[in-house]
Amino acid sequence: MSFLTKQVLPITKQFYLMPSATRNMSVMAKVLRYGEFGEPAKVLRLQEETISDPKDDEVLIKTLGAPINPADINTIQGKYPVKPVFPAVGGNECVGEVVAIGRGSGGGQLKVGDRVVPFATGLGTWRSHAIYSANQLMKVPANIGVAEAATITVNPCTGYRMLKDFVSLKPGDTVIQNGANSACGQAIIQLCRAWKIECVGIVRDRPEFSQLKDYLKGLGAAEILTEEELRTTKLFKDGIFRKPKLALNCVGGKNALEMSRHLDQAGVMVTYGGMSREPVIVPTASLIFKDLRFVGFWMTRWTKENVDNPQRSEMFNELFGLIDRGALKAPAHEMIPFEDYEMAVTNALNIQGFVGKKYIFNF
Amino acid sequence: MSFLTKQVLPITKQFYLMPSATRNMSVMAKVLRYGEFGEPAKVLRLQEETISDPKDDEVLIKTLGAPINPADINTIQGKYPVKPVFPAVGGNECVGEVVAIGRGSGGGQLKVGDRVVPFATGLGTWRSHAIYSANQLMKVPANIGVAEAATITVNPCTGYRMLKDFVSLKPGDTVIQNGANSACGQAIIQLCRAWKIECVGIVRDRPEFSQLKDYLKGLGAAEILTEEELRTTKLFKDGIFRKPKLALNCVGGKNALEMSRHLDQAGVMVTYGGMSREPVIVPTASLIFKDLRFVGFWMTRWTKENVDNPQRSEMFNELFGLIDRGALKAPAHEMIPFEDYEMAVTNALNIQGFVGKKYIFNF
Repeated sequence: MSFLTKQVLPITKQFYLMPSATRNMSVMAKVLRYGEFGEPAKVLRLQEETISDPKDDEVLIKTLGAPINPADINTIQGKYPVKPVFPAVGGNECVGEVVAIGRGSGGGQLKVGDRVVPFATGLGTWRSHAIYSANQLMKVPANIGVAEAATITVNPCTGYRMLKDFVSLKPGDTVIQNGANSACGQAIIQLCRAWKIECVGIVRDRPEFSQLKDYLKGLGAAEILTEEELRTTKLFKDGIFRKPKLALNCVGGKNALEMSRHLDQAGVMVTYGGMSREPVIVPTASLIFKDLRFVGFWMTRWTKENVDNPQRSEMFNELFGLIDRGALKAPAHEMIPFEDYEMAVTNALNIQGFVGKKYIFNF
Repeated sequence: MSFLTKQVLPITKQFYLMPSATRNMSVMAKVLRYGEFGEPAKVLRLQEETISDPKDDEVLIKTLGAPINPADINTIQGKYPVKPVFPAVGGNECVGEVVAIGRGSGGGQLKVGDRVVPFATGLGTWRSHAIYSANQLMKVPANIGVAEAATITVNPCTGYRMLKDFVSLKPGDTVIQNGANSACGQAIIQLCRAWKIECVGIVRDRPEFSQLKDYLKGLGAAEILTEEELRTTKLFKDGIFRKPKLALNCVGGKNALEMSRHLDQAGVMVTYGGMSREPVIVPTASLIFKDLRFVGFWMTRWTKENVDNPQRSEMFNELFGLIDRGALKAPAHEMIPFEDYEMAVTNALNIQGFVGKKYIFNF
């Protein structure tokens, strides 16, 4: 039992003063729950509940940040294939600080003051405090910022796996992606920059296009095109960039089709979203003669199938390293007080501005 | 030099009487040539030409049968990605009989009287006689029928590879395919029967549906459905058959979409044709959440990439064995005199009857 510590963390300092077995103090947690599917602002209820001491291998954390991802909204709407047991707590990502640990988890890696992110999916993270099993959490280095840590398990991991698992990319190779301004798109651009891969990003045309282009090129994009420019670009034909081996698609419809036309022989399109709500259209000739392959990626499934795969720790270590040296920043975001959840969940999928902004609750 | 033989083969017997080096006899060959792209009946010309003795590693064959495949028609129309050098000879498959061999090929595997099929693509097979290099030909066992041998290198090989190379199938597993009455479809049904795989075939509705169904079930299909029946079938939901791991698509459009809905989690759709001239439509959710994969297969590419792959001889040996024991028959076909080529190339893609019939030239 090593959670006695000299670190001074004002809000939770009471926990450091006595061993958990004898602590017997409770904390009042705020929790965003829902008991039925529907529009989040209607079905979510902010509740208060008393959380008592963590037992056995349990850990009590205080949440520092928890983002609103599109999948969180879709889950509450009942439109996502993951169906929670009611009553359910919203949210799937967070970063928290360990404020107390049970007796049984004392021998583990976690100690009071550690920052942790969920190592399991579906924990329900929209709450100010929570009790989790120690093995549901992963320690993150202390120097990782709240926004980076709170958003690491979904988008950077999705980008990482899609860039690693479908084709073999060498420095100088090209990746093309649509929705390049999405949170995942921003992570993909930065990962490509870190690995010396040319990332050509596609975004919808908009009044602030040049501002958005500058922002995304600042993150490391090799080029940013509108959907219209994509149709006629000669970047690949003229050899400015190698023909892409990999296309990452979160839009679908015509835009995905246009991207596929630029893919190199035997290229792969990985679909991880469908913002246009239109299917992916695949010309027969591109399958037979160009040998293109069309596959999908879902981080939730990958995590489920690779819980104990060493590739998983390897991935997180590499991501932490990139964050540490400033090569991977959190997506454009805004910290939102937990109490403003109605506004936040209502607007989360339609935040105005030149780049898709992510809301992150703070507590 | 071992082509002196006692076999009596009337038409070509003169070749057996003297060594090729001293033979110095010529043969008049009929050849279907074209010098520009266009409708086959218009651009093809039946020409006669003198073929002299095979030299070095060359082999003179007399063609016994050469089919008309859809790709042959599309090639002449200029709609196929393989562009011949003009003047070109039509056709890509045949079976021939070796009637003379050059000095240099004497040490090889071929001897006069052997039956051979092309081991290379693009040889131009619509001709009564031809000179090829010995290494462009593969000997077929003497007991293989002319129709089976003439049609072995495209459709049975396509079916074989698609069943072997994309998912791992065990006896009892299900494969679903559309265009089940096509020549390739008929081969796939028979290969599935031989390997104890349940093959569910889809065909367009037609007046002679029940006759066609009987024919295809006679070849070994587990079930035959119309496109309409496919939409509502409960064969897979109710567990009559396992959910298909593999869908083989030569149609595209709505029909391919309907097939994909029945695929098992992580199933693969392999596209090798697009008879509806509509693209393959892929719902985003089937890529992300169901992990379906959409790929293409082109026998021409496989052959090019696997010229010396031992898997190739293994495949042919297995196919010859199946033919030998009556487990793999030629597709429904009609032998057509070479002189009737205008009728044949005009009607080849639209042969009336309850099953797609293939025309095979004889000479």
